Amino acid sequence: MQRELNEECAVAGVFNHKDASKLTYFALFSLQHRGQEAAGISSSDGKKMHTIKDRGLVTQVFDDVKLTTLKGHMAVGHTRYSTAGDDSILDAQPVYARYDLGEMAIVHNGNLTNAQSIRDKLISKGAIFQTFMDTENLIHLIAKSEQGKLVERIIDAVNKIEGAYSLIIQSRSKMFAIRDPHGFRPLSYAKIGEGYMVASETCAYDLVGAEYVRDILPGEMLIFEKGMEPQSLQIMPSTPKHCIFEYVYFARPDSNVYEQNVYTLRKKMGIQLARESAIDADMVIPVPDGGVPAAIGYSQASGIPFEMAIMRNHYVGRTFIEPTQEIRDLKVKMKLSPIKEMIQGKRIIIIDDSIVRGTTSRKIVRMLKDAGAKEVHMRISSPPTTDPCFYGVDTPNKDKLIAANMSLDEIRDYIGADSLAYLSVEGLYASVGGEKSHYCTACFTGEYITS
Amino acid sequence: MQRELNEECAVAGVFNHKDASKLTYFALFSLQHRGQEAAGISSSDGKKMHTIKDRGLVTQVFDDVKLTTLKGHMAVGHTRYSTAGDDSILDAQPVYARYDLGEMAIVHNGNLTNAQSIRDKLISKGAIFQTFMDTENLIHLIAKSEQGKLVERIIDAVNKIEGAYSLIIQSRSKMFAIRDPHGFRPLSYAKIGEGYMVASETCAYDLVGAEYVRDILPGEMLIFEKGMEPQSLQIMPSTPKHCIFEYVYFARPDSNVYEQNVYTLRKKMGIQLARESAIDADMVIPVPDGGVPAAIGYSQASGIPFEMAIMRNHYVGRTFIEPTQEIRDLKVKMKLSPIKEMIQGKRIIIIDDSIVRGTTSRKIVRMLKDAGAKEVHMRISSPPTTDPCFYGVDTPNKDKLIAANMSLDEIRDYIGADSLAYLSVEGLYASVGGEKSHYCTACFTGEYITS
Amino acid sequence: MQRELNEECAVAGVFNHKDASKLTYFALFSLQHRGQEAAGISSSDGKKMHTIKDRGLVTQVFDDVKLTTLKGHMAVGHTRYSTAGDDSILDAQPVYARYDLGEMAIVHNGNLTNAQSIRDKLISKGAIFQTFMDTENLIHLIAKSEQGKLVERIIDAVNKIEGAYSLIIQSRSKMFAIRDPHGFRPLSYAKIGEGYMVASETCAYDLVGAEYVRDILPGEMLIFEKGMEPQSLQIMPSTPKHCIFEYVYFARPDSNVYEQNVYTLRKKMGIQLARESAIDADMVIPVPDGGVPAAIGYSQASGIPFEMAIMRNHYVGRTFIEPTQEIRDLKVKMKLSPIKEMIQGKRIIIIDDSIVRGTTSRKIVRMLKDAGAKEVHMRISSPPTTDPCFYGVDTPNKDKLIAANMSLDEIRDYIGADSLAYLSVEGLYASVGGEKSHYCTACFTGEYITS
Amino acid sequence: MQRELNEECAVAGVFNHKDASKLTYFALFSLQHRGQEAAGISSSDGKKMHTIKDRGLVTQVFDDVKLTTLKGHMAVGHTRYSTAGDDSILDAQPVYARYDLGEMAIVHNGNLTNAQSIRDKLISKGAIFQTFMDTENLIHLIAKSEQGKLVERIIDAVNKIEGAYSLIIQSRSKMFAIRDPHGFRPLSYAKIGEGYMVASETCAYDLVGAEYVRDILPGEMLIFEKGMEPQSLQIMPSTPKHCIFEYVYFARPDSNVYEQNVYTLRKKMGIQLARESAIDADMVIPVPDGGVPAAIGYSQASGIPFEMAIMRNHYVGRTFIEPTQEIRDLKVKMKLSPIKEMIQGKRIIIIDDSIVRGTTSRKIVRMLKDAGAKEVHMRISSPPTTDPCFYGVDTPNKDKLIAANMSLDEIRDYIGADSLAYLSVEGLYASVGGEKSHYCTACFTGEYITS
Repeated sequence: MQRELNEECAVAGVFNHKDASKLTYFALFSLQHRGQEAAGISSSDGKKMHTIKDRGLVTQVFDDVKLTTLKGHMAVGHTRYSTAGDDSILDAQPVYARYDLGEMAIVHNGNLTNAQSIRDKLISKGAIFQTFMDTENLIHLIAKSEQGKLVERIIDAVNKIEGAYSLIIQSRSKMFAIRDPHGFRPLSYAKIGEGYMVASETCAYDLVGAEYVRDILPGEMLIFEKGMEPQSLQIMPSTPKHCIFEYVYFARPDSNVYEQNVYTLRKKMGIQLARESAIDADMVIPVPDGGVPAAIGYSQASGIPFEMAIMRNHYVGRTFIEPTQEIRDLKVKMKLSPIKEMIQGKRIIIIDDSIVRGTTSRKIVRMLKDAGAKEVHMRISSPPTTDPCFYGVDTPNKDKLIAANMSLDEIRDYIGADSLAYLSVEGLYASVGGEKSHYCTACFTGEYITS
Repeated sequence: MQRELNEECAVAGVFNHKDASKLTYFALFSLQHRGQEAAGISSSDGKKMHTIKDRGLVTQVFDDVKLTTLKGHMAVGHTRYSTAGDDSILDAQPVYARYDLGEMAIVHNGNLTNAQSIRDKLISKGAIFQTFMDTENLIHLIAKSEQGKLVERIIDAVNKIEGAYSLIIQSRSKMFAIRDPHGFRPLSYAKIGEGYMVASETCAYDLVGAEYVRDILPGEMLIFEKGMEPQSLQIMPSTPKHCIFEYVYFARPDSNVYEQNVYTLRKKMGIQLARESAIDADMVIPVPDGGVPAAIGYSQASGIPFEMAIMRNHYVGRTFIEPTQEIRDLKVKMKLSPIKEMIQGKRIIIIDDSIVRGTTSRKIVRMLKDAGAKEVHMRISSPPTTDPCFYGVDTPNKDKLIAANMSLDEIRDYIGADSLAYLSVEGLYASVGGEKSHYCTACFTGEYITS
Repeated sequence: MQRELNEECAVAGVFNHKDASKLTYFALFSLQHRGQEAAGISSSDGKKMHTIKDRGLVTQVFDDVKLTTLKGHMAVGHTRYSTAGDDSILDAQPVYARYDLGEMAIVHNGNLTNAQSIRDKLISKGAIFQTFMDTENLIHLIAKSEQGKLVERIIDAVNKIEGAYSLIIQSRSKMFAIRDPHGFRPLSYAKIGEGYMVASETCAYDLVGAEYVRDILPGEMLIFEKGMEPQSLQIMPSTPKHCIFEYVYFARPDSNVYEQNVYTLRKKMGIQLARESAIDADMVIPVPDGGVPAAIGYSQASGIPFEMAIMRNHYVGRTFIEPTQEIRDLKVKMKLSPIKEMIQGKRIIIIDDSIVRGTTSRKIVRMLKDAGAKEVHMRISSPPTTDPCFYGVDTPNKDKLIAANMSLDEIRDYIGADSLAYLSVEGLYASVGGEKSHYCTACFTGEYITS
Repeated sequence: MQRELNEECAVAGVFNHKDASKLTYFALFSLQHRGQEAAGISSSDGKKMHTIKDRGLVTQVFDDVKLTTLKGHMAVGHTRYSTAGDDSILDAQPVYARYDLGEMAIVHNGNLTNAQSIRDKLISKGAIFQTFMDTENLIHLIAKSEQGKLVERIIDAVNKIEGAYSLIIQSRSKMFAIRDPHGFRPLSYAKIGEGYMVASETCAYDLVGAEYVRDILPGEMLIFEKGMEPQSLQIMPSTPKHCIFEYVYFARPDSNVYEQNVYTLRKKMGIQLARESAIDADMVIPVPDGGVPAAIGYSQASGIPFEMAIMRNHYVGRTFIEPTQEIRDLKVKMKLSPIKEMIQGKRIIIIDDSIVRGTTSRKIVRMLKDAGAKEVHMRISSPPTTDPCFYGVDTPNKDKLIAANMSLDEIRDYIGADSLAYLSVEGLYASVGGEKSHYCTACFTGEYITS
């Protein structure tokens, strides 16, 4: 799938390292795939916090001069996918505030399902909201908590919120990493030098040379304090509901998510898919880059040769030039190019990770047929996406999800494939392993944890 | 004086006009001299507010596409001089918030003297502060007021704040213009089409073709509501203390401030200055542009010919090129160029509006001497600036104000002039007319209204 | 006049100075008023030339890093007014070429009147032209000259060209400054440290601390060579025809042009204008900045008070916002603001330096009338502009020049003034002094030197 | 190989199509991999040419407004890899010139080996060179040819030049496509609507929906003239010497080059490589993207599983942030990320297309070892690169080519691999097929065609 879905963000934090903001920068660079619209870092030098956030990619927002102003031995950072709006710049993170205990900066990956009711309650008591981010709720709850110490206030506050939240909270001298009781979104920590790094995905550690320690647990708060080992508090009962779509689509293949490697699992999905819906063909082709591991798995399981017969263009950027009459499906063709010689006269199995609206799949099938494919069999390495996500993924409404509105045959006809098969939900479970009930599969099953 | 001092802002608002945001844009363009670091506009279409604010000049922040997204028949805008800092973009105005009565956007020109104590009180009750602007206090006070209606809450809130504030507050359907009881900063309104415009200076009206109605009075709130004439409420007792420095330096000469034309008054200051400290010379030269009207007045009163013998360069921008050994006083010389032929061998009276640190004056005198001036007599069309401003002007600390630390003779020697004279405080009063006690002259006299 | 006319360029060069390119940069900064579209510098380090040129102001094209790459003890530079076109970037100067004697870089201020016929001749012999600049002709002529040494070739080449040319030519180790036999455009040189500076206007010397030596003479070539005094060769007979419009409009008032100060002469034009077309009025107002010196002269001669009652806005930049219905003459009003209080009910003499198309004058008169002026008498400190310039000034065609197509009364009616008078040609001669026949006054008289 | 080598350009042209410049734009977009530093298009509307060229990617240089100014039914375009230099902007193509027959614009892919001697000859006859591009020679030769008609002059001119040149020349109404007698660089043409497209690679046709007709032959000139079929003239004897490195590295895998598909041939090289240097291992991994097809071939031939165990980061841009102490090989790691879980404890065959300096290969091997690889066997799908290219590829000097200076064992030790093997020259010939003598293999064999 060509990045039609967007997670709302990635978080990263570094504690007790002289290059805290620089390491946070590199961590965010590794997590760029989780949000390309805005980026920000807040550092603390013990006395004062420093924040820079702006629209753009991590490499565009920061330069050496700016990183130098982000002084201190700790920092938290964020990359954001933000829906275009009037105030998008204001909705970049970290969210920073002064409050009765001093200063704090928060970064948040996820989505609060009771944000509206909390906001209404806070507003009725005189609170003001200056942004459109759920995270602002949390700041208010912490600031208004009647507990004395920050750690108690954070516990107090997170017990009032519902939904998905992987959080890093920075005070002037401490850092707190918290994962919601369901562990919807990934969050782990690593050791770097004498300090620590917290990040949404482990690929951040590989770039900077940090050593992965373990995932933060559902309902756990990890407290980083100078001169001490990280302290763990289980502040809420753990009832795991890990987002299974991280495995299917979001996470980078080189990351370990929920302690399993993403590439490996995607390949397993492809193997399982080959078992469930085998078909005779001349080659297996992935839709790059998302479909690659599953296609390799499918090929190995089926014995049908894997070919990279659709290439991805690396110079895609924004072009605003209107196509001419001759050109159809221009946008897809500027990103993906079929290798005609390979495809012509061949029976193709094309592997993608998911279908959301169906429009891109339709164009890809047409592109393959135009290139002379004799048969095009589409295989999807996840179950039909039938329901929207309320935990931080920017899915379209149910009426836009093709699998919520058409039968399998109708979808096949719409996209123009000779056959179409999805991975079964059971097959997905089998591929990822572990306890089924520990995954959130709402987007495939409509079974939501919270209302 | 070469814009060493900076007021913190200008405000403008348009009510009941189909081109509300566009007219606000042009108003801000006219008020650009009051703040060049950031600009912003919030409009309301009756149901929803739209805000755009960013670093840069008004013409840089906005374009036609952006103005189009600022829908609605009302808008408030702001230009800001902001001290460079980590978060400067966050400190742009309008300040926008959602609160229990809906949405509001505030623009503020001035400085609250009890901001710290209000903030401390609010924070101790659980409020959070996300910016470093005094204006955020006001939003909290309004949101937390126990009064029911917005108008009552605004009254409640402004009665708790002290200092200088010319405010425009926009709700989804109404607009409120308020001036502090002292009327420190200018604020007036005008009629345009079927609607109204509020602005810091009247020059904004001339550009867009609005008709000046009158100044908002000290302690007055003007309420703009659809289908009604503006309603006036005297919400605080009026004790006028108009900033006299607006006349000396800040306001544009084509503006009427406190109902008098600025150019005319500056010319009178020059006339008065000629009376107070006449000296024989060959010509009167202004430091452009600030000193021009006073120099014309001085010339007319003294009979000594006026000459524009220092020209101002219009292509000054930022240059980061280090000067070579040959070049001294580069920065001043890139802005101001003496006309040697006119100056050589001549006795010069050079007129400026004020001296703050003295460094620029020193360079200007040296430039004139280098150009061959026989004598340089500096005349300042305001009294010695001895005290910092706490009401919205970014003056340096007292220890940086040359007139607070040196005698007249010492200053004359420091700047290298053959003679030096300031306008007397009495002379300034005489020039501007009106009731002396109605002016704030703290920067010249140290007599502050509030503590 | 609001910079409706544009000269095609300014030239500058520095020889034998370790900061050659930096000093050239500052010289170009001072000469920015002669061309704002593009800027360029070529330096030579004795072995190799280095060139940077681009669209934009001098301060935009160069930064410290770029200047550092322009190595060497000599440099030539150029600022350009360029008519927008496909290839405008290619038409920036210096023009650089490799040829049989090595490398050369040329900067040129002026316009060749026989460029077309030279180009045709060159092209017919197999030359190719890659730009649309006259200067390319010269490079060809030098390269193809049958003379042996560069100096001889330059002499050979310039004797083939006609029109206006103030040139600086740089070889790897020498610099040549040449002025056409008529001396149409200004060119002089100065001493700086152990080296020399050549520039279009003397204001360039003041900024960097160079000492003016003298003008290059009409038909003179000055040769700068290491370890030697500049050598002068009179390579063509001198028949001076200095552009008188430099005095009227182009040159900066602080420059000395043709060895006279511009401000002083402009003031004299105002004095003469007062003598020729006196009228009773309440005040004399300049159209800033061009009309200022003449208005001061007019005021001093007539005894009618000078007032700066139209102010110029310094924040004018590009705005692409469409005006609303209320706003007329927006563009002029964004640049110029009348001070109503001064103008209301008054009889005004408004002084400008020239009228080209008449549209701006019409808007200015209307602006004054709208501001309440009782009478508006326009006085122009130069004769009617009746003929286009072929020597480097971008005047419109004759059919666009209002004075070529309307009588005085018709122009007065068109611009809406109560009276209108121009300076007479004789009056202009009287003001500038010197031998009449030494000036080119073609734009006022239609008497062209060349065909 | 991570794009260490750069070809100097790509060319494209469109004749007789109402969207000529737009189609040229899309063609250049497809050819972006052949040059990313500058891009340009010249169109002709029959009367006049229009040219836009600038630094940057195709999508950065052009927008809809600019394309609209490139009027006419024919256009030629170019993308350039340019060595950073003072004048890089001037060295963008098309090269445009006016000459005795009118106007022409030329785009050129390749490198002339006798450019210096031609230039010297031309310069000695009075020609001037304003750029550092070989193409300027050609313009001179055409302009100075004593033949009468353009077609004859072109024939005359190209018979004087040696080296590699795939050219498109545009006059006001005709277009000429010429390939050097050796056919060093690819060039072909296609039909689009009623018109034609010429391009360096066939991938350009697929994007815009043009239909490939055939390659332009070595020594052939194709003439496009309104209302006529393209006319073919064999203007030089054909002695094919196609650059074999196009197959190895440059061309896009979906292009057909010299009438064979690139992906298919690269896969064959992998198959051949497996035959020549088989080794037992757990998996075959490509260095993405260059090594992918060969790795697939190697895997299919050897039966060792293919894995995409190094992923390529798509957000790589420029970052100027200095790495911290923890980070080594940052630049490579920002582009390529190993999937540790797949690699750990495994015996890896890593496939790349070539080794130039060896530094990147060394970092990749280290990266794999750091990720836990038990063994790393590097296999290169081309022979050792021992000699620089003089026909348009920007190879480093011989002393920088690792294979020219070290034995196989030394290279293996330097890069740190457990084994290393290159494809044999014979194996390369076998993979690409056809007549051996029709290829230029100078970079692998040192056998240059020309001196």
